[in-house]
Amino acid sequence: MEIDQEELTSILHILETEINQYKESETSVHPYDIAEQLLKVRGLSNQAYEQIIKKIPSSLFADILSELPNHVQEETADILSVKKLANIALHMDTDDAATLIQNISEDHEDVSQNILERFTEEDKEIIEQLISYEEYEAGSYMQTELFHAKIDENIGKALERLRGLKTSGDVDNIWHVHLVNERNKYLGSIGLEELIIFDRDLNFEDVPYEKHKNYSVNHKQNIKEVVEMVTNYNLNAIAVLDDKNRLVGRITSDDIIDIIQESATEQIFNLAGVNDEAEQEENMFQIGKTRAIWLGLNLLTAIAASLVIGMFDATIQSLVALAILMPIVASMGGNAGTQTLTVTVRQMALGDIEGDDAKKTIYKEVIISLVNGTLFAVLIGVIAYLWFNMPMLGVVIGLSMIINLLGAGFFGSVIPLVLQKAGVDPAIGSTVLLTTVTDVVGFFSFLGLASIILL
Amino acid sequence: MEIDQEELTSILHILETEINQYKESETSVHPYDIAEQLLKVRGLSNQAYEQIIKKIPSSLFADILSELPNHVQEETADILSVKKLANIALHMDTDDAATLIQNISEDHEDVSQNILERFTEEDKEIIEQLISYEEYEAGSYMQTELFHAKIDENIGKALERLRGLKTSGDVDNIWHVHLVNERNKYLGSIGLEELIIFDRDLNFEDVPYEKHKNYSVNHKQNIKEVVEMVTNYNLNAIAVLDDKNRLVGRITSDDIIDIIQESATEQIFNLAGVNDEAEQEENMFQIGKTRAIWLGLNLLTAIAASLVIGMFDATIQSLVALAILMPIVASMGGNAGTQTLTVTVRQMALGDIEGDDAKKTIYKEVIISLVNGTLFAVLIGVIAYLWFNMPMLGVVIGLSMIINLLGAGFFGSVIPLVLQKAGVDPAIGSTVLLTTVTDVVGFFSFLGLASIILL
Repeated sequence: MEIDQEELTSILHILETEINQYKESETSVHPYDIAEQLLKVRGLSNQAYEQIIKKIPSSLFADILSELPNHVQEETADILSVKKLANIALHMDTDDAATLIQNISEDHEDVSQNILERFTEEDKEIIEQLISYEEYEAGSYMQTELFHAKIDENIGKALERLRGLKTSGDVDNIWHVHLVNERNKYLGSIGLEELIIFDRDLNFEDVPYEKHKNYSVNHKQNIKEVVEMVTNYNLNAIAVLDDKNRLVGRITSDDIIDIIQESATEQIFNLAGVNDEAEQEENMFQIGKTRAIWLGLNLLTAIAASLVIGMFDATIQSLVALAILMPIVASMGGNAGTQTLTVTVRQMALGDIEGDDAKKTIYKEVIISLVNGTLFAVLIGVIAYLWFNMPMLGVVIGLSMIINLLGAGFFGSVIPLVLQKAGVDPAIGSTVLLTTVTDVVGFFSFLGLASIILL
Repeated sequence: MEIDQEELTSILHILETEINQYKESETSVHPYDIAEQLLKVRGLSNQAYEQIIKKIPSSLFADILSELPNHVQEETADILSVKKLANIALHMDTDDAATLIQNISEDHEDVSQNILERFTEEDKEIIEQLISYEEYEAGSYMQTELFHAKIDENIGKALERLRGLKTSGDVDNIWHVHLVNERNKYLGSIGLEELIIFDRDLNFEDVPYEKHKNYSVNHKQNIKEVVEMVTNYNLNAIAVLDDKNRLVGRITSDDIIDIIQESATEQIFNLAGVNDEAEQEENMFQIGKTRAIWLGLNLLTAIAASLVIGMFDATIQSLVALAILMPIVASMGGNAGTQTLTVTVRQMALGDIEGDDAKKTIYKEVIISLVNGTLFAVLIGVIAYLWFNMPMLGVVIGLSMIINLLGAGFFGSVIPLVLQKAGVDPAIGSTVLLTTVTDVVGFFSFLGLASIILL
């Protein structure tokens, strides 16, 4: 598509205004808004985009870059100098810096190392630690900037310290003080809403601080469990501890919101045979390639179904009504199975199906599919009878409808449960496995029963 | 299923311990945990459940009930007396009380009115206002308990007031002070992290309070926009204003998290032809009935496809290979279409497709489906040729594969975009519309081309 010069000029104008406003006060414009405009420019003209980002001061670009998607962070290494990138990273919170460095290292290992070398020994260690976490571990989502105090510290003094930390920009979005003992072991947290009303002459040990004591997680804990805790207990920040119960970071509710949104997208996409990360690519052929892998799998499934049909070619030849009706059974099975599968996968993801609930889920789904199977068996049986004026054809399609919907309910719930037991994400692959079952069972039961009963 | 007495006894024991712990300190156990155990008891024995909830004191049950699902709240009207229910509601925050009263009114309009009458005139008005909001309006998610101050108030005095409000239990989870003028018009907010370091001798008007000024929403604004704001700007609470810009409530990040989870579930379910609210029912036949409506729609689609096949019965009779291969084209179209549809619906929900992006999305999807259509056309063409030793059969299936995947890409993106323009939730109904297209186009193009080219 052609570049719309008028649109570009108008966006560049908005951008310039926003950047100036931000430089003046940091209050009236949020970096997210500037990031949005930058992405629009980038969508219209790469050249204009590169020119602008070279001009934005490092401290401001640090705030903006954290709001830009990973693949956009990756390519900055091709546009900006190592020195500028390092300057930007130094202006970021450690968790954002770790993400940026990790993104840059995808294609430019040397550049990311070079950036890392410019950090202080302490920050370098923190960032390397953050990068070392697995994607599913709580540690990879935490930020190390927080407000903590020793248990015997005076409250007034601690608040003075907070004032200093905030003025220097070392911490932001503080909602709790996290209390530790002299060996940095975590003891509990106090929300600012409580802290603010305590007598400033007291020490922390003199006030009740145990309210949040259960709300900490281990740094290696699965992020899903952290999301469940924050969601169930309505927290807005949770302390992260290392294996020795030392305070190493915190995860805030805005991180949790991002995680929830992303994992919902991942589930929806995976169920439909789409990869969420690949879809973020800009190259259409790259997106198409990943989708093609899934379609290729589906082709195998479809061919398997065709092989089943092929077994009954003589039957079809002698009664072409079978060819006309057979997709109905397969389609209804596929749909009923997808209903069951989707409900099961989502409830598993939300932690609503645990332990003994598995049996109950399968039981429920089988009953539902049996009832609906019977309903639609009668319905399609009557339709088939009236359509082709063959009573036994109605019986055949009705029976195979019951069989296929029963299979759909059973396998729709069992497949994701078994995949999870096997350590596989139940959203990935469930659909193609299920469709194979409902297609094969659908065609086989219908054509098989027809060849026995009708011929 | 039989009641597992052993399991019931052990859960009852846990429950009793938790309730006692909660009574003692409110700190070591979260009401959510007690609610979880109660649901387990309810799953095992309704009788045991009813006995327990009659025994829990109103103030404690108020905290627990807010954590229980809507249908469980509904049925409390059948178990507890109006007096007890009113007592419980009086112990709740106004937003939770409004939800409870609304749930009870589903089946017991008289009981809910009776409860409402026991509130003070002021609280009654607030609750009626909350209930009057539409489900999609910001107001229906807000709580009216918050900490606000007049702009000319002394900071130290305001903090004294907060101490009082917290001690009496009138407010909780306070993260900001919201500032208003003498006519209650909203002026801005200050986070406690900033407030805590200000000099207590100052008045609010002496300190910078405009940082959060842009982060308020109108009470009638669509909750989706609120979610986007909170997500994009990493907020943890947002002020809600009425049409005259008066402060009427706030929405906190834990509400936003619940909304995001629920709307993701709704999308996933709707795309699969499942209704998220119906799935929460306990009666399997109720769930089955709602799913049957969707399956009924799908039956119509499948019959439409069969009618198309029926137009070509003579063609199939003379070449049974067509019956064997025809599901492949329809299946591949359905899958490719679902990929496109899912990506489009989700990106629309996340606000990633707006205005001009619609054209770009359709363009992208058509290109991708054209490329993949060509790829799989060649593949299935060769397979069909080798399988049935008919070169022209390969050409026919290849051509219809391209046609159907092109249609899948086009309609997979256009259907949700058009539905949204028409004010319909694009997640509902898209799938069945799309499958109709890919089935009909798939069978028609394949059998039609076959009857022209092969016979």
